[in-house]
Amino acid sequence: MKEYEVYEFLKSYGIQTPQYKIFDIDKKLFFNKFPAVLKILSKKVTHKSDVGGIRVGIDSNEELQLARNEMVLSLQKNGIFLDSEDKFIVQETVRGEEFYIGGIYDDIFEEVLLFGKGGTLIEIEKDVCYIDTASEESEILKSFNTTKISKIFPKFRGKEYKIEYVLDVIKKFQKLFLKEDIIEFDINPLIYIDSGFIAVDARMKFGKPNKKRKKVRKYDIFQNKKIAIFGATDKKDKVGYAIAKNSLKSSCDIYFVNPRLKSLFDKKVYSSVEELPNIDTAIIAIPSRLVLELVMKLAKKGVQNIIIVSAGFKESGNKELEEKIKKVADDFGLNIIGPNCLGIYDSSKNLNLTFASDNILAGDIALISQSGAVLSALLDKAYSHSIGFSHILSLGNMVDFDFTDAVRNLQNKNECKFINIYAEGLQGGKEFLKAIRESKKTVFIYKTGKSTEAKRAAFSHTGNISGDYEMLKSLCYAAGAVIKDDIEELVFSPKFQNFDEVLIITNAGGPGTILTDIVTQSGKRLYSLQKEEIEKLNRVLPDTWSKNNPVDIIGDATSIRYRKTLEILYSEKILIFVIVTPQYMTDSLNIAKILAGYKNIVPVFFGEENFKDVFEYFKKDGILYFNDLENIKNIL
Amino acid sequence: MKEYEVYEFLKSYGIQTPQYKIFDIDKKLFFNKFPAVLKILSKKVTHKSDVGGIRVGIDSNEELQLARNEMVLSLQKNGIFLDSEDKFIVQETVRGEEFYIGGIYDDIFEEVLLFGKGGTLIEIEKDVCYIDTASEESEILKSFNTTKISKIFPKFRGKEYKIEYVLDVIKKFQKLFLKEDIIEFDINPLIYIDSGFIAVDARMKFGKPNKKRKKVRKYDIFQNKKIAIFGATDKKDKVGYAIAKNSLKSSCDIYFVNPRLKSLFDKKVYSSVEELPNIDTAIIAIPSRLVLELVMKLAKKGVQNIIIVSAGFKESGNKELEEKIKKVADDFGLNIIGPNCLGIYDSSKNLNLTFASDNILAGDIALISQSGAVLSALLDKAYSHSIGFSHILSLGNMVDFDFTDAVRNLQNKNECKFINIYAEGLQGGKEFLKAIRESKKTVFIYKTGKSTEAKRAAFSHTGNISGDYEMLKSLCYAAGAVIKDDIEELVFSPKFQNFDEVLIITNAGGPGTILTDIVTQSGKRLYSLQKEEIEKLNRVLPDTWSKNNPVDIIGDATSIRYRKTLEILYSEKILIFVIVTPQYMTDSLNIAKILAGYKNIVPVFFGEENFKDVFEYFKKDGILYFNDLENIKNIL
Repeated sequence: MKEYEVYEFLKSYGIQTPQYKIFDIDKKLFFNKFPAVLKILSKKVTHKSDVGGIRVGIDSNEELQLARNEMVLSLQKNGIFLDSEDKFIVQETVRGEEFYIGGIYDDIFEEVLLFGKGGTLIEIEKDVCYIDTASEESEILKSFNTTKISKIFPKFRGKEYKIEYVLDVIKKFQKLFLKEDIIEFDINPLIYIDSGFIAVDARMKFGKPNKKRKKVRKYDIFQNKKIAIFGATDKKDKVGYAIAKNSLKSSCDIYFVNPRLKSLFDKKVYSSVEELPNIDTAIIAIPSRLVLELVMKLAKKGVQNIIIVSAGFKESGNKELEEKIKKVADDFGLNIIGPNCLGIYDSSKNLNLTFASDNILAGDIALISQSGAVLSALLDKAYSHSIGFSHILSLGNMVDFDFTDAVRNLQNKNECKFINIYAEGLQGGKEFLKAIRESKKTVFIYKTGKSTEAKRAAFSHTGNISGDYEMLKSLCYAAGAVIKDDIEELVFSPKFQNFDEVLIITNAGGPGTILTDIVTQSGKRLYSLQKEEIEKLNRVLPDTWSKNNPVDIIGDATSIRYRKTLEILYSEKILIFVIVTPQYMTDSLNIAKILAGYKNIVPVFFGEENFKDVFEYFKKDGILYFNDLENIKNIL
Repeated sequence: MKEYEVYEFLKSYGIQTPQYKIFDIDKKLFFNKFPAVLKILSKKVTHKSDVGGIRVGIDSNEELQLARNEMVLSLQKNGIFLDSEDKFIVQETVRGEEFYIGGIYDDIFEEVLLFGKGGTLIEIEKDVCYIDTASEESEILKSFNTTKISKIFPKFRGKEYKIEYVLDVIKKFQKLFLKEDIIEFDINPLIYIDSGFIAVDARMKFGKPNKKRKKVRKYDIFQNKKIAIFGATDKKDKVGYAIAKNSLKSSCDIYFVNPRLKSLFDKKVYSSVEELPNIDTAIIAIPSRLVLELVMKLAKKGVQNIIIVSAGFKESGNKELEEKIKKVADDFGLNIIGPNCLGIYDSSKNLNLTFASDNILAGDIALISQSGAVLSALLDKAYSHSIGFSHILSLGNMVDFDFTDAVRNLQNKNECKFINIYAEGLQGGKEFLKAIRESKKTVFIYKTGKSTEAKRAAFSHTGNISGDYEMLKSLCYAAGAVIKDDIEELVFSPKFQNFDEVLIITNAGGPGTILTDIVTQSGKRLYSLQKEEIEKLNRVLPDTWSKNNPVDIIGDATSIRYRKTLEILYSEKILIFVIVTPQYMTDSLNIAKILAGYKNIVPVFFGEENFKDVFEYFKKDGILYFNDLENIKNIL
């Protein structure tokens, strides 16, 4: 497609392009929009500028004639003689701030737009954001506001910049990209002028991308009541033993299946699918070679959910077997979780169908993890800090049931307030974005594979390509997810989400300053002390106290001074960090005991050896505390 | 100064400026460098562009006459009638990539240059670096390479960019800034052309900055042998007790001073300065109101180093008293450390003159801290991880002896390999940069006060203004320091500095991927497995092992498999992380015992509850381990 043909194509979507006129080689040139540029259109010319085939900065029709004559001469000097097939094109020169819009068809997110600062330095400046073709206005703005160039809106150096123009041009390109078969395109520069954006240099690569559409899912994974455990066993070193044991506390009907066993934990053990009554859910912990046949039988029996914990599939090079299982899920429209996963947990039924841990507390976080090992570690940490879960989903190789299904299934679960996702690779990105966008619960995402080396490691590990991290981060953020950089935030982050203001009480200035940096960088505000509070504190604190938040109550503070300060400042509405450093007078265990009583106080005992007894005390009661400063960001 | 006068000023330093010519109002205009711009020079005109007093894009002398006539008409329309005092200026238009150079006189670092991308968007792009006027070529390049615009050197989109031009123009401005009395200046744009950089728009603010010069220091704080402790006491709740007790192990001559005591720890206690023999160092732990008189006496006695641990000075609003002490240091040319500090430590003499901790191990880190509380906490952490120190300096209010002195005093100490600084506020920035530049030891810096709120907190706490963090970071980095973002890195960072390559052994893919991200982001490389190593591993590991680094030895790995893997891969030259996640078969304590034997293996037991025995075991032997992943960055 020639440039002027691209212009016509863009115009058909209402996108502004420069005025131009095409002339036969022997016609007199006449134009009315200056400054202008004159270019030769000829199959004989590949690089116009090398042979004098382009002339810029033309200000009048007189200059235009002159430029044309000079161009013909220059072409002749380069051995190019024009004939009736060749043409001249005169085009207006557009001046203004340079932007960029582009599009790529991504394997995971399909049609994705890029928008930001344009110009020749784009590759090194990289001041662009990603925008999904389904994003509406607020999402587009959220994404655009992550760029530096967005800061010139609504006014910069006396010139007005209208944000409506940004929305207008992006919406037009969203429509165009979805309607046409385009692999990628670049408009650089896309220039901001008084009437909107105008596409100047345009490059389009047409083609038919290989679009995958997702099936519609019929069942809710947590709507289960009658559950069979295949591979339930009395051998303690088998996962089937742990699952069976963990399942016992549940209010569901649980059926054990194992042809080599009569009873287990005083319950009858069934010998086969055929013998079982009707069930809605099956969890499978038998050798991988036997799994496909069982899955087929279960599908035919009308089971809605199958959880395959068995390993030995794609992760062991057994991709074909996995494909066959996927086909069953598609053909019968049922949920298959796994294979190679740890199982699921649902606090509302006290249902622990995992071999991950028998120490899971009920809470408001739904934790969804692709990696079983990461899930185990996080559950372990959570338990030791008294953090509980509403639901747990270990997705393993993710043959069928994925993050999108998980987010959707959790929407109507009242116990769940936060959906926390550990992702290595994604699939069906557009559906995932839609699920995030529609989610009534806050979605937190930690994604591995930021570096090239890590992508390779993830690939060899799960067999999933992990995609471009920056794109995922930008798109999921704009759709409403919170992107986390530290994996432990998946456990700790939700606890104090509702607090906007922070109070810091400390017996040392330095750590107070450090924590102030951490708090403000997280986006939370420091609470401003009220006049009356300052007056009251003046009465109980030494003269040299800081008179400000952080409230530095000075190094010789004992538990008594901490208690008096809290009596004046404590409020349920503020997140309170109490920092204790090991100083000469510090009766740390007494201070710890005072703090333990409050839900919204986070003790920060900055040290190690000196606080051993304090840490023991907190651990025993499952109280969340810190012994360093930087990790506090994980809960902010 | 008019713009063309600034041009002449810049030319006198060899800096290129655009060609221009000034014409009386009645003279015929003639110029020979096009495109050009015509401007009016008149006291009657303040905003040229509002009254048609500027015309751009002039390509020939004919156009120049036309532009002049049009300008005169336009000015008349605006009520401006030119007379013999007014002049025209014609100036060449310069085209090329736009850069920026500026300078500010900073309170801490004095003359500082800024250099980077120019243009109208400079405030929002902020693609600039800071350069000290004393920086030489390698330092200038180090700083410039932190900008994005540096990536167009040496070639971008077919055009060559010469880095010599960058060095040349910066050196000229360094010279100019040091020689002239300038408060600040801006050259934007500074345009890159074929012959170098040319300063186009220039603004200079002249004035006499208030320069402070530092005194020359005579004594080395660690060259001490005869030490008196003022305030040594038998009262256990006093810091004078702790200092006296901690000092006993030293090989120095220690003298206790306390008029109310005869003996302490079986040593004689002196009653006054007068009674004491000659000493080189005094440490003072007596009430603040008595300190000045004592310091005077000590100075007159010829003492070289005075360490004031007593509090109650600037931090309590007692600024005047502190000023008087500063004057003694200046008048007598001696070192005063503190006040309001914890003391000093020197491993070479086993000298612990602190009340911070009696648990300090000898090692190769010199730790220098402005905050006593932070120092205490770090020492506490270090001890529990068997990390030792060559020297410790608690600087407190830093009335006299500062970071610069500390860095210089440590240069000839063989025990010290790393100089790790915790800074809240700096003084004498140019001297500090010089000390870093000349340092033969690696200097690590953690600086608080990144956010506005934290700067305010630090101010109320130490009374020191903390300065601009970005400037400090950029200048110290270029001078050769390593800037740290996590305070615990001051303790952990040096341990594995000498390793460039990293090997990861894991029983789970997910954590291996996460750690790969962390390792590569730190700048270290993943070790590439050799062909023979892969073959050997194939013989001892299950088929599904990763065949790559991270070496995923699969979830069912027991200590035997960990041991076999290490027998094949262990090397003293590689930093090795061994990740253990709590899986069904994991005999974690046995694995821990295998790992404990190696100095360059860091155990990563990712979990909590399940590994309690492992953590107890490591703690008992002071072995550095991790129970999370993200904090591993602190040692990379």
